[in-house]
Amino acid sequence: MAQPQNPRDRMVSSAMHLFRQHGVAATALSDVVEHSGAPRGSLYHYFPDGKAQLAEEATALGGRLMGKTISKWMAAKGPAGTVEALIDLYRDQLRASDFTIGCPVVAGALEGGESPGARAIAGEAFTSWESTLAGALWQHGIPAQRADTLAAMIVCSIEGAIIVAKAQRSTRPLDRVGEELDALLRSAL
Amino acid sequence: MAQPQNPRDRMVSSAMHLFRQHGVAATALSDVVEHSGAPRGSLYHYFPDGKAQLAEEATALGGRLMGKTISKWMAAKGPAGTVEALIDLYRDQLRASDFTIGCPVVAGALEGGESPGARAIAGEAFTSWESTLAGALWQHGIPAQRADTLAAMIVCSIEGAIIVAKAQRSTRPLDRVGEELDALLRSAL
Repeated sequence: MAQPQNPRDRMVSSAMHLFRQHGVAATALSDVVEHSGAPRGSLYHYFPDGKAQLAEEATALGGRLMGKTISKWMAAKGPAGTVEALIDLYRDQLRASDFTIGCPVVAGALEGGESPGARAIAGEAFTSWESTLAGALWQHGIPAQRADTLAAMIVCSIEGAIIVAKAQRSTRPLDRVGEELDALLRSAL
Repeated sequence: MAQPQNPRDRMVSSAMHLFRQHGVAATALSDVVEHSGAPRGSLYHYFPDGKAQLAEEATALGGRLMGKTISKWMAAKGPAGTVEALIDLYRDQLRASDFTIGCPVVAGALEGGESPGARAIAGEAFTSWESTLAGALWQHGIPAQRADTLAAMIVCSIEGAIIVAKAQRSTRPLDRVGEELDALLRSAL
């Protein structure tokens, strides 16, 4: 992904990157300013509501980017190829970041009291990924109700595998979930 | 679960409860002292390393409690009954807490830089749950390699479903993952 040109977008992109790695609560706004290379003092100019607003926009950005990726891959690779590509993507990102980087939307999902807006946007992002996946599964001949449960299974098992992989410092959970999902899709299709 | 009698155990139990709800970074040590009803000043007496030590012990406590529950249920209910009971447990806890309470081990799993010890213990807890599940699945006739991938699928999909359920403020992800896991187990057994 190319680095955005304008300072506001750069700050949202930096926030997304840092929140994925450290969580929202453990990320300081000064880290976001420094990471983005934006001028000091510009953060409250662009984000008058501070961290809560940044958490909402970073979660929305992560949700949209991943949603577009899922749609693009579904059109090009079909369901089994998309799930394999998602597993490969996170396997590579976990290895490249020494098992520190997680899902861009989970950080927002886990902010309860501190940023209820980010949590709600994370919920919308998960719902939209599920809808995209379910729509594509239906296009491949899977009945609507099964497409809904399979789509939820894909999103939940990959999200869980990323968290377990970070804790175990191993890509094994992704490998195993990938194997089970592959068998599940091939028997359903 | 009965409230522990001695102040040290009460503090670990309170920390587990608060970390599940708010995450480690967003929980203040003063909240742990207040929740436990322990005397002020006793926290650093029992936990000289402060929050990092408390995060490690709370994650270990959560991992042990859930591991014992899984073992007990596997002996009494078998694999499909255990997965159903786990889904029911989290469905009830999410509803009762207005979708704020998550897995006791995920809070530790997500602490990267701040508490690497808690993260490592979270990894051990996930591994031990997977081993317990895989051992029980093997006892029910599933070949060892498949038992390993199925056990990972159970742990990862339920963990992911809890996070997605919190964000969507709905038990639907747990319902759907429960349906898929039930079908998966019945076809494997």
